[in-house]
Amino acid sequence: MSMKGKLGYSILAMSIGAVLASYSVAQMSTDKYSRPAMTAAKGAVLNDKGETSIPEGFRLWSFIGAPLTPNGLNDGAAGFPEFHHVYIQPEALQEYLETGVFPEGTTIVKELVLLQEGEYEDGSRDEPSGRGFFADRFAGIDMMVKDSEKFAETNGWGFYNFGHKEPPYATVASPAPADSCAGCHMANADFDMVFRRMYPILKEK
Amino acid sequence: MSMKGKLGYSILAMSIGAVLASYSVAQMSTDKYSRPAMTAAKGAVLNDKGETSIPEGFRLWSFIGAPLTPNGLNDGAAGFPEFHHVYIQPEALQEYLETGVFPEGTTIVKELVLLQEGEYEDGSRDEPSGRGFFADRFAGIDMMVKDSEKFAETNGWGFYNFGHKEPPYATVASPAPADSCAGCHMANADFDMVFRRMYPILKEK
Repeated sequence: MSMKGKLGYSILAMSIGAVLASYSVAQMSTDKYSRPAMTAAKGAVLNDKGETSIPEGFRLWSFIGAPLTPNGLNDGAAGFPEFHHVYIQPEALQEYLETGVFPEGTTIVKELVLLQEGEYEDGSRDEPSGRGFFADRFAGIDMMVKDSEKFAETNGWGFYNFGHKEPPYATVASPAPADSCAGCHMANADFDMVFRRMYPILKEK
Repeated sequence: MSMKGKLGYSILAMSIGAVLASYSVAQMSTDKYSRPAMTAAKGAVLNDKGETSIPEGFRLWSFIGAPLTPNGLNDGAAGFPEFHHVYIQPEALQEYLETGVFPEGTTIVKELVLLQEGEYEDGSRDEPSGRGFFADRFAGIDMMVKDSEKFAETNGWGFYNFGHKEPPYATVASPAPADSCAGCHMANADFDMVFRRMYPILKEK
Protein backbone atom coordinates (compact mmCIF):
# COMPACT_ATOMS: atom_id res chain seq x y z
CA MET A 1 0.00 0.00 0.00
CA SER A 2 1.51 3.30 -1.08
CA MET A 3 1.42 6.41 1.08
CA LYS A 4 -0.81 7.93 -1.56
CA GLY A 5 -3.22 5.04 -1.16
CA LYS A 6 -3.21 5.39 2.61
CA LEU A 7 -3.84 9.11 2.38
CA GLY A 8 -6.67 8.64 -0.07
CA TYR A 9 -8.24 6.07 2.17
CA SER A 10 -8.04 8.38 5.20
CA ILE A 11 -9.68 11.21 3.31
CA LEU A 12 -12.46 8.92 2.22
CA ALA A 13 -12.91 7.61 5.72
CA MET A 14 -13.25 11.11 7.14
CA SER A 15 -15.87 11.89 4.53
CA ILE A 16 -18.11 9.01 5.52
CA GLY A 17 -18.08 9.36 9.26
CA ALA A 18 -16.15 10.49 12.28
CA VAL A 19 -16.00 7.05 13.83
CA LEU A 20 -14.46 5.39 10.82
CA ALA A 21 -12.14 8.36 10.36
CA SER A 22 -10.72 8.09 13.85
CA TYR A 23 -10.23 4.37 13.34
CA SER A 24 -8.38 5.00 10.12
CA VAL A 25 -6.06 7.53 11.77
CA ALA A 26 -5.28 5.05 14.50
CA GLN A 27 -4.33 2.52 11.84
CA MET A 28 -2.43 4.79 9.48
CA SER A 29 0.96 3.41 10.34
CA THR A 30 0.02 -0.16 9.48
CA ASP A 31 -1.24 -2.06 6.48
CA LYS A 32 -4.96 -1.50 6.52
CA TYR A 33 -5.83 -4.84 5.03
CA SER A 34 -3.76 -7.07 7.25
CA ARG A 35 -3.58 -5.51 10.69
CA PRO A 36 -6.82 -4.64 12.43
CA ALA A 37 -7.41 -4.06 16.08
CA MET A 38 -8.20 -7.64 17.07
CA THR A 39 -11.42 -6.57 18.76
CA ALA A 40 -12.77 -4.82 15.66
CA ALA A 41 -13.99 -7.05 12.88
CA LYS A 42 -16.45 -4.50 11.59
CA GLY A 43 -18.17 -5.18 8.31
CA ALA A 44 -18.60 -2.66 5.54
CA VAL A 45 -19.96 0.80 6.38
CA LEU A 46 -22.22 2.20 3.64
CA ASN A 47 -22.91 5.89 3.06
CA ASP A 48 -26.24 7.29 1.86
CA LYS A 49 -25.43 6.45 -1.74
CA GLY A 50 -24.59 2.88 -0.86
CA GLU A 51 -20.89 3.47 -1.49
CA THR A 52 -18.41 1.74 0.73
CA SER A 53 -14.75 0.87 1.25
CA ILE A 54 -12.85 -2.33 1.85
CA PRO A 55 -13.14 -3.10 5.57
CA GLU A 56 -10.01 -2.75 7.67
CA GLY A 57 -8.15 -5.92 8.34
CA PHE A 58 -10.39 -8.35 6.48
CA ARG A 59 -7.45 -10.68 5.91
CA LEU A 60 -7.51 -11.54 9.60
CA TRP A 61 -11.19 -12.44 9.52
CA SER A 62 -12.44 -15.99 9.34
CA PHE A 63 -12.15 -17.93 6.12
CA ILE A 64 -14.75 -20.07 4.44
CA GLY A 65 -12.96 -21.41 1.38
CA ALA A 66 -10.76 -20.84 -1.64
CA PRO A 67 -12.41 -21.91 -4.90
CA LEU A 68 -9.84 -22.02 -7.69
CA THR A 69 -10.42 -21.17 -11.35
CA PRO A 70 -6.95 -21.21 -12.94
CA ASN A 71 -6.35 -19.07 -16.01
CA GLY A 72 -4.74 -22.15 -17.54
CA LEU A 73 -8.08 -23.98 -17.49
CA ASN A 74 -10.10 -20.98 -18.71
CA ASP A 75 -8.57 -19.98 -22.04
CA GLY A 76 -5.93 -17.91 -20.26
CA ALA A 77 -8.44 -15.51 -18.75
CA ALA A 78 -10.63 -16.79 -15.94
CA GLY A 79 -13.54 -14.57 -14.94
CA PHE A 80 -12.12 -14.58 -11.43
CA PRO A 81 -8.38 -15.28 -11.57
CA GLU A 82 -7.38 -17.51 -9.85
CA PHE A 83 -7.79 -18.53 -6.18
CA HIS A 84 -10.82 -16.85 -4.60
CA HIS A 85 -9.89 -16.36 -0.93
CA VAL A 86 -13.22 -15.81 0.78
CA TYR A 87 -13.36 -14.10 4.18
CA ILE A 88 -16.21 -13.30 6.57
CA GLN A 89 -16.24 -11.50 9.92
CA PRO A 90 -15.75 -14.08 12.70
CA GLU A 91 -18.82 -12.79 14.56
CA ALA A 92 -21.03 -13.19 11.49
CA LEU A 93 -19.72 -16.69 10.86
CA GLN A 94 -20.28 -17.66 14.45
CA GLU A 95 -23.84 -16.34 14.36
CA TYR A 96 -24.48 -18.24 11.13
CA LEU A 97 -23.15 -21.44 12.69
CA GLU A 98 -25.45 -20.99 15.66
CA THR A 99 -28.61 -19.87 13.87
CA GLY A 100 -28.24 -20.81 10.21
CA VAL A 101 -28.83 -17.19 9.24
CA PHE A 102 -26.40 -14.56 8.01
CA PRO A 103 -27.08 -11.50 10.20
CA GLU A 104 -27.80 -8.07 8.74
CA GLY A 105 -24.53 -6.36 7.87
CA THR A 106 -22.71 -9.60 7.11
CA THR A 107 -19.77 -8.74 4.88
CA ILE A 108 -18.08 -11.34 2.71
CA VAL A 109 -14.86 -10.38 0.94
CA LYS A 110 -13.50 -12.37 -1.99
CA GLU A 111 -9.86 -11.61 -2.71
CA LEU A 112 -8.50 -12.88 -6.00
CA VAL A 113 -5.03 -14.41 -5.82
CA LEU A 114 -2.84 -15.22 -8.81
CA LEU A 115 -0.94 -18.48 -8.98
CA GLN A 116 2.78 -19.07 -8.87
CA GLU A 117 4.14 -19.65 -12.34
CA GLY A 118 2.95 -22.92 -13.79
CA GLU A 119 5.16 -25.69 -15.13
CA TYR A 120 2.25 -27.32 -16.97
CA GLU A 121 -0.31 -25.95 -19.42
CA ASP A 122 -3.06 -25.98 -16.82
CA GLY A 123 -1.02 -23.64 -14.61
CA SER A 124 -0.02 -26.27 -12.07
CA ARG A 125 3.53 -26.88 -10.86
CA ASP A 126 5.46 -29.41 -8.81
CA GLU A 127 6.18 -28.73 -5.16
CA PRO A 128 7.25 -31.02 -2.30
CA SER A 129 3.57 -31.63 -1.47
CA GLY A 130 2.76 -32.74 -5.01
CA ARG A 131 1.64 -31.34 -8.33
CA GLY A 132 -0.84 -28.59 -7.80
CA PHE A 133 -1.69 -24.93 -7.59
CA PHE A 134 0.01 -22.52 -5.23
CA ALA A 135 -0.83 -18.89 -4.49
CA ASP A 136 1.51 -16.08 -5.40
CA ARG A 137 0.03 -12.59 -5.09
CA PHE A 138 -3.17 -10.67 -4.39
CA ALA A 139 -4.97 -9.39 -7.48
CA GLY A 140 -8.48 -8.11 -6.82
CA ILE A 141 -11.38 -7.62 -4.45
CA ASP A 142 -15.09 -8.31 -4.74
CA MET A 143 -17.39 -7.90 -1.76
CA MET A 144 -21.00 -8.62 -0.83
CA VAL A 145 -22.88 -6.95 2.03
CA LYS A 146 -26.21 -8.02 3.50
CA ASP A 147 -28.69 -5.17 3.90
CA SER A 148 -32.19 -6.49 3.32
CA GLU A 149 -33.75 -3.04 3.12
CA LYS A 150 -31.24 -1.23 0.96
CA PHE A 151 -30.74 -4.13 -1.43
CA ALA A 152 -34.24 -5.57 -1.47
CA GLU A 153 -34.19 -5.81 -5.25
CA THR A 154 -31.20 -8.16 -5.26
CA ASN A 155 -32.35 -10.56 -2.56
CA GLY A 156 -30.95 -8.47 0.28
CA TRP A 157 -27.31 -8.26 -0.74
CA GLY A 158 -25.24 -5.51 -2.36
CA PHE A 159 -22.21 -6.36 -4.50
CA TYR A 160 -19.02 -4.34 -4.95
CA ASN A 161 -15.98 -4.61 -7.19
CA PHE A 162 -12.82 -2.83 -6.03
CA GLY A 163 -10.88 -3.88 -9.12
CA HIS A 164 -9.60 -7.15 -10.52
CA LYS A 165 -5.95 -6.15 -10.47
CA GLU A 166 -3.07 -6.09 -8.06
CA PRO A 167 -3.17 -3.55 -5.17
CA PRO A 168 -3.63 -0.72 -4.53
CA TYR A 169 -7.33 -1.43 -4.86
CA ALA A 170 -10.05 1.18 -5.40
CA THR A 171 -10.65 3.07 -2.18
CA VAL A 172 -14.39 3.33 -2.73
CA ALA A 173 -16.96 1.46 -4.79
CA SER A 174 -20.63 1.86 -5.66
CA PRO A 175 -23.04 -1.06 -5.67
CA ALA A 176 -22.63 -3.06 -8.87
CA PRO A 177 -25.59 -3.14 -11.28
CA ALA A 178 -28.09 -5.89 -10.52
CA ASP A 179 -27.34 -7.65 -13.79
CA SER A 180 -23.66 -8.18 -12.98
CA CYS A 181 -22.63 -9.98 -9.79
CA ALA A 182 -26.09 -10.16 -8.21
CA GLY A 183 -27.65 -11.66 -11.32
CA CYS A 184 -25.33 -14.67 -11.27
CA HIS A 185 -25.78 -15.18 -7.53
CA MET A 186 -29.56 -14.94 -7.87
CA ALA A 187 -29.50 -17.54 -10.64
CA ASN A 188 -26.98 -19.97 -9.19
CA ALA A 189 -26.28 -19.57 -5.48
CA ASP A 190 -27.89 -22.17 -3.27
CA PHE A 191 -28.37 -20.39 0.09
CA ASP A 192 -29.19 -16.71 0.72
CA MET A 193 -27.19 -15.58 -2.33
CA VAL A 194 -24.10 -17.50 -1.16
CA PHE A 195 -22.63 -20.52 -2.99
CA ARG A 196 -22.81 -22.51 0.21
CA ARG A 197 -22.20 -25.79 -1.57
CA MET A 198 -18.58 -24.71 -2.16
CA TYR A 199 -17.79 -23.95 1.50
CA PRO A 200 -17.56 -26.98 3.80
CA ILE A 201 -17.83 -24.97 6.98
CA LEU A 202 -21.12 -23.45 5.83
CA LYS A 203 -22.49 -26.83 4.82
CA GLU A 204 -22.17 -28.00 8.42
CA LYS A 205 -25.25 -25.90 9.23
CA MET B 1 -18.88 -34.70 15.49
CA SER B 2 -20.60 -37.65 17.12
CA MET B 3 -21.62 -37.68 20.79
CA LYS B 4 -19.03 -40.35 21.30
CA GLY B 5 -16.39 -38.05 19.85
CA LYS B 6 -17.49 -35.21 22.07
CA LEU B 7 -17.37 -37.40 25.13
CA GLY B 8 -13.95 -38.73 24.25
CA TYR B 9 -12.70 -35.23 23.79
CA SER B 10 -14.04 -34.11 27.16
CA ILE B 11 -12.38 -37.00 28.95
CA LEU B 12 -9.11 -36.19 27.29
CA ALA B 13 -9.44 -32.54 28.15
CA MET B 14 -10.01 -33.31 31.81
CA SER B 15 -6.96 -35.51 31.84
CA ILE B 16 -4.65 -32.79 30.62
CA GLY B 17 -5.71 -29.92 32.81
CA ALA B 18 -8.52 -28.31 34.71
CA VAL B 19 -8.48 -25.14 32.66
CA LEU B 20 -8.88 -26.93 29.37
CA ALA B 21 -11.47 -29.26 30.92
CA SER B 22 -13.68 -26.42 32.07
CA TYR B 23 -13.41 -24.84 28.64
CA SER B 24 -14.44 -28.09 27.03
CA VAL B 25 -17.47 -28.44 29.28
CA ALA B 26 -18.54 -24.93 28.41
CA GLN B 27 -18.34 -25.84 24.75
CA MET B 28 -19.90 -29.30 24.90
CA SER B 29 -23.13 -28.29 23.23
CA THR B 30 -21.41 -26.88 20.16
CA ASP B 31 -19.12 -28.11 17.44
CA LYS B 32 -15.69 -27.82 18.93
CA TYR B 33 -13.94 -27.08 15.67
CA SER B 34 -16.20 -24.32 14.41
CA ARG B 35 -17.52 -22.38 17.37
CA PRO B 36 -15.01 -20.98 19.83
CA ALA B 37 -15.52 -18.24 22.32
CA MET B 38 -14.53 -15.32 20.12
CA THR B 39 -12.09 -14.02 22.71
CA ALA B 40 -10.20 -17.30 22.95
CA ALA B 41 -7.98 -18.21 20.04
CA LYS B 42 -5.67 -20.34 22.10
CA GLY B 43 -3.05 -22.38 20.37
CA ALA B 44 -2.26 -25.98 21.14
CA VAL B 45 -1.72 -27.02 24.77
CA LEU B 46 0.94 -29.72 25.14
CA ASN B 47 1.22 -32.14 28.05
CA ASP B 48 4.51 -33.42 29.50
CA LYS B 49 4.84 -36.03 26.77
CA GLY B 50 4.31 -33.42 24.07
CA GLU B 51 0.89 -34.82 23.22
CA THR B 52 -1.83 -32.42 22.26
CA SER B 53 -5.32 -32.03 20.82
CA ILE B 54 -6.82 -30.04 18.00
CA PRO B 55 -7.44 -26.52 19.34
CA GLU B 56 -11.03 -25.45 19.83
CA GLY B 57 -12.52 -23.41 17.07
CA PHE B 58 -9.53 -23.27 14.74
CA ARG B 59 -11.83 -22.87 11.75
CA LEU B 60 -12.64 -19.37 12.92
CA TRP B 61 -8.98 -18.41 13.15
CA SER B 62 -7.21 -16.39 10.48
CA PHE B 63 -6.35 -18.01 7.19
CA ILE B 64 -3.08 -17.81 5.30
CA GLY B 65 -3.78 -19.84 2.17
CA ALA B 66 -5.16 -22.95 0.52
CA PRO B 67 -2.56 -24.80 -1.58
CA LEU B 68 -4.24 -27.38 -3.76
CA THR B 69 -2.82 -30.77 -4.75
CA PRO B 70 -5.68 -32.57 -6.54
CA ASN B 71 -5.74 -36.36 -6.51
CA GLY B 72 -6.40 -36.13 -10.23
CA LEU B 73 -2.97 -34.60 -10.81
CA ASN B 74 -1.17 -36.96 -8.42
CA ASP B 75 -1.86 -40.47 -9.70
CA GLY B 76 -5.14 -40.55 -7.82
CA ALA B 77 -3.53 -40.27 -4.40
CA ALA B 78 -2.01 -36.94 -3.45
CA GLY B 79 0.16 -36.92 -0.36
CA PHE B 80 -2.14 -34.25 1.05
CA PRO B 81 -5.56 -34.54 -0.60
CA GLU B 82 -6.65 -32.02 -1.81
CA PHE B 83 -7.10 -28.40 -0.68
CA HIS B 84 -4.90 -27.59 2.31
CA HIS B 85 -6.83 -24.98 4.31
CA VAL B 86 -4.19 -23.40 6.52
CA TYR B 87 -5.23 -21.53 9.68
CA ILE B 88 -3.28 -19.61 12.30
CA GLN B 89 -4.41 -17.84 15.49
CA PRO B 90 -5.26 -14.21 14.64
CA GLU B 91 -3.03 -12.95 17.45
CA ALA B 92 -0.02 -14.93 16.18
CA LEU B 93 -0.59 -13.70 12.64
CA GLN B 94 -0.88 -10.11 13.83
CA GLU B 95 2.34 -10.40 15.81
CA TYR B 96 4.09 -11.91 12.80
CA LEU B 97 2.86 -9.06 10.59
CA GLU B 98 4.21 -6.53 13.08
CA THR B 99 7.53 -8.16 13.95
CA GLY B 100 8.30 -10.69 11.22
CA VAL B 101 8.58 -13.40 13.87
CA PHE B 102 6.22 -16.24 14.75
CA PRO B 103 5.82 -16.03 18.55
CA GLU B 104 6.39 -19.02 20.80
CA GLY B 105 3.27 -21.16 20.89
CA THR B 106 2.23 -20.27 17.36
CA THR B 107 -0.09 -23.00 16.16
CA ILE B 108 -0.74 -23.59 12.47
CA VAL B 109 -3.48 -26.03 11.50
CA LYS B 110 -3.69 -27.54 8.03
CA GLU B 111 -7.06 -29.08 7.29
CA LEU B 112 -7.30 -31.27 4.22
CA VAL B 113 -10.43 -30.79 2.12
CA LEU B 114 -11.59 -33.12 -0.64
CA LEU B 115 -12.88 -31.70 -3.91
CA GLN B 116 -16.35 -31.84 -5.34
CA GLU B 117 -16.64 -34.57 -7.93
CA GLY B 118 -14.64 -33.76 -11.05
CA GLU B 119 -15.95 -33.66 -14.58
CA TYR B 120 -12.46 -33.85 -16.06
CA GLU B 121 -9.55 -36.22 -15.48
CA ASP B 122 -7.63 -33.67 -13.44
CA GLY B 123 -10.51 -33.45 -10.96
CA SER B 124 -11.77 -30.07 -12.11
CA ARG B 125 -15.38 -29.26 -12.96
CA ASP B 126 -17.40 -26.46 -14.51
CA GLU B 127 -19.18 -23.93 -12.30
CA PRO B 128 -20.63 -20.49 -13.03
CA SER B 129 -17.27 -18.93 -12.10
CA GLY B 130 -15.37 -21.11 -14.59
CA ARG B 131 -13.62 -24.44 -14.81
CA GLY B 132 -11.78 -25.16 -11.63
CA PHE B 133 -11.58 -26.89 -8.30
CA PHE B 134 -14.20 -26.54 -5.58
CA ALA B 135 -14.13 -27.81 -2.01
CA ASP B 136 -16.53 -30.45 -0.80
CA ARG B 137 -15.70 -31.92 2.62
CA PHE B 138 -13.12 -31.95 5.41
CA ALA B 139 -10.78 -34.93 5.38
CA GLY B 140 -7.80 -34.58 7.69
CA ILE B 141 -5.75 -32.48 10.08
CA ASP B 142 -2.03 -31.79 10.37
CA MET B 143 -0.72 -29.24 12.83
CA MET B 144 2.58 -27.56 13.70
CA VAL B 145 3.36 -25.87 17.01
CA LYS B 146 6.28 -23.59 17.78
CA ASP B 147 8.13 -24.48 20.98
CA SER B 148 11.79 -23.70 20.54
CA GLU B 149 12.84 -25.55 23.67
CA LYS B 150 10.76 -28.70 23.40
CA PHE B 151 11.35 -29.13 19.68
CA ALA B 152 14.91 -27.84 19.44
CA GLU B 153 15.92 -30.83 17.31
CA THR B 154 13.41 -29.96 14.58
CA ASN B 155 14.14 -26.24 14.29
CA GLY B 156 11.74 -25.28 17.06
CA TRP B 157 8.51 -26.76 15.72
CA GLY B 158 6.58 -29.91 16.59
CA PHE B 159 4.40 -31.65 14.02
CA TYR B 160 1.18 -33.58 14.57
CA ASN B 161 -1.06 -35.73 12.40
CA PHE B 162 -4.65 -36.24 13.58
CA GLY B 163 -5.50 -38.47 10.65
CA HIS B 164 -5.87 -37.99 6.92
CA LYS B 165 -9.49 -39.04 6.78
CA GLU B 166 -12.91 -37.52 7.28
CA PRO B 167 -13.98 -36.53 10.84
CA PRO B 168 -14.11 -37.51 13.58
CA TYR B 169 -10.39 -36.87 13.84
CA ALA B 170 -8.05 -38.34 16.43
CA THR B 171 -8.63 -36.66 19.79
CA VAL B 172 -4.95 -36.71 20.73
CA ALA B 173 -1.67 -36.98 18.84
CA SER B 174 1.99 -37.39 19.73
CA PRO B 175 4.70 -35.41 17.98
CA ALA B 176 5.48 -36.97 14.61
CA PRO B 177 8.95 -38.48 14.12
CA ALA B 178 11.55 -35.98 12.93
CA ASP B 179 11.98 -37.79 9.63
CA SER B 180 8.33 -37.36 8.64
CA CYS B 181 6.75 -33.89 8.47
CA ALA B 182 9.64 -32.00 10.06
CA GLY B 183 12.18 -33.49 7.68
CA CYS B 184 10.41 -32.13 4.63
CA HIS B 185 9.90 -28.72 6.20
CA MET B 186 13.57 -28.57 7.26
CA ALA B 187 14.64 -29.40 3.71
CA ASN B 188 12.19 -27.25 1.76
CA ALA B 189 10.47 -24.52 3.79
CA ASP B 190 11.78 -21.02 3.20
CA PHE B 191 11.07 -19.20 6.50
CA ASP B 192 11.14 -20.61 10.05
CA MET B 193 9.89 -24.02 8.89
CA VAL B 194 6.93 -22.45 7.07
CA PHE B 195 6.45 -22.50 3.29
CA ARG B 196 6.09 -18.73 3.34
CA ARG B 197 6.43 -18.47 -0.42
CA MET B 198 3.00 -20.08 -0.81
CA TYR B 199 1.16 -17.63 1.44
CA PRO B 200 0.75 -14.09 0.05
CA ILE B 201 -0.14 -12.55 3.39
CA LEU B 202 3.08 -13.87 4.95
CA LYS B 203 5.17 -12.61 2.03
CA GLU B 204 4.05 -9.05 2.80
CA LYS B 205 6.44 -9.09 5.75
